[in-house]
Amino acid sequence: MRFVSFSTLDGRVKGYGLIKGQGVIDLSKRVGDRWPTLDAIIADNALQTLTADAENLPVDYALSDIQFEVPLTHPGKILCVGVNYPNRNAEYKDNQVAADYPSLFVRFPESLTGHLQPLLRPAESEQLDYEGEIVIVIGKAGRRIAQNDAMDHIAAITLGNEGTVRDWVRHSKFNVTQGKNFYHSGAIGPWLVPFTHAAQLNDIHLATYVNGELRQNDRTSNMTFSFAWIIAYVSTFIPLNPGDIIFTGTPTGAGARFEPPIWLKPGDVIEVQAEGIGTLRNVVRDEG
Amino acid sequence: MRFVSFSTLDGRVKGYGLIKGQGVIDLSKRVGDRWPTLDAIIADNALQTLTADAENLPVDYALSDIQFEVPLTHPGKILCVGVNYPNRNAEYKDNQVAADYPSLFVRFPESLTGHLQPLLRPAESEQLDYEGEIVIVIGKAGRRIAQNDAMDHIAAITLGNEGTVRDWVRHSKFNVTQGKNFYHSGAIGPWLVPFTHAAQLNDIHLATYVNGELRQNDRTSNMTFSFAWIIAYVSTFIPLNPGDIIFTGTPTGAGARFEPPIWLKPGDVIEVQAEGIGTLRNVVRDEG
Repeated sequence: MRFVSFSTLDGRVKGYGLIKGQGVIDLSKRVGDRWPTLDAIIADNALQTLTADAENLPVDYALSDIQFEVPLTHPGKILCVGVNYPNRNAEYKDNQVAADYPSLFVRFPESLTGHLQPLLRPAESEQLDYEGEIVIVIGKAGRRIAQNDAMDHIAAITLGNEGTVRDWVRHSKFNVTQGKNFYHSGAIGPWLVPFTHAAQLNDIHLATYVNGELRQNDRTSNMTFSFAWIIAYVSTFIPLNPGDIIFTGTPTGAGARFEPPIWLKPGDVIEVQAEGIGTLRNVVRDEG
Repeated sequence: MRFVSFSTLDGRVKGYGLIKGQGVIDLSKRVGDRWPTLDAIIADNALQTLTADAENLPVDYALSDIQFEVPLTHPGKILCVGVNYPNRNAEYKDNQVAADYPSLFVRFPESLTGHLQPLLRPAESEQLDYEGEIVIVIGKAGRRIAQNDAMDHIAAITLGNEGTVRDWVRHSKFNVTQGKNFYHSGAIGPWLVPFTHAAQLNDIHLATYVNGELRQNDRTSNMTFSFAWIIAYVSTFIPLNPGDIIFTGTPTGAGARFEPPIWLKPGDVIEVQAEGIGTLRNVVRDEG
């Protein structure tokens, strides 16, 4: 089951639905009065209720007639976990021992675009880079959530390209906010997959390709901080609510770590792929 | 003119209005159909339109009958500027030269409470600290805003206590997210003052008191990065929109820098005060 937020290419319809073959079943025209957006469905924890009969409905649009939008129209908090796969610390060559806690930073919705939409390289930098990640969407509120209960708080999973403007990440001594928040420098999608059982996340393959070349390649079973640990940790300081989003960290192999670094340039195709979720694909374009 | 978001102590009314003497004029019952929240007024850039005749209206509630709420119900981005007053770098004793760019980090709305509401010290730490700040509220959208135009993008000003859990700020090598986002560890308010002329910000006195003792004491004319510079810089990477909020940095004198450090404890009264804005007052309480 794959839930998309979409707009039609003629601009007349903005809605959400289910992917079926090469088409989309428009659910918003059927249940939009009750749930105007996917956000509302997540807030109601109704993703699984909806799926029961929906797949038998006829397709309303061909995939070629829609534009993929960011799955949640008004996401809640967007938290991102730094270094979270083995050898990534080594990659940074900073002689740090393994950290007790992850680095956490924040992206604003404006920094993210949808599947198949252009990833923008800003005029201010030539150092646009990719980071492929698994993204979880919270469906059930909680504070100080126990690790044992944590996975029950995930409503859906998706993919992220946590696109980064490297020189702006180091503008200040601490905090990477600037370099992680250039307008449409990252992406999320292509769709939300309802999370119903642990095997969807526990040991899945995650890979990032640039122009078809494999650059990042790892499995979630290798994560330093597990999905459940991250949910427990974050909810220690702040409540998690439906619609909150967590980018759970990226494997080794970002462009910054090549010698010399390989930055993204206009026309480059970035694909983030994970087993059971799909492929998030974006092409780089110069902003302006 | 002071605009408040409030709820009545009996819980029946949640609205917004204007402070008049020791009372509140309830504007939401008069123009709530058009603007359900202060957020909607800011989004419409209508704060100054509203003020023209409103002050002649009768008071609806005594201040003693209302609770002050966080001024914006659903704020946009909440950005915070680090070190931004002279000697603050020196205070950190880290032998850094003056930075070219400010440190920027993010707070989530859940980390902030309103005027006169309890500031919460979490069970996880005894290192709750205060940081008094001037806060600006964006009223006009823009990207890559020129410094000369920047002040026109401010709709209103208010105060912030950028409360910080110091040990959690250093959980990771980079990024202070955790220590800056404990639930209700900070405050914003007491109200929004419409920003209409430069003298309201250019050289105003900012002070923080703990139990009546002066701890932070400076003037905005001493800021390392000016209000206009900050707006221009932030909007270089991301669009600023009405309802976005910027905490503009704190003077020297936080509790962390005393020898030994003086942490906040239950019962402590923190007052952040600025000329022409007012006083934001909160009492510390143990969460639980």
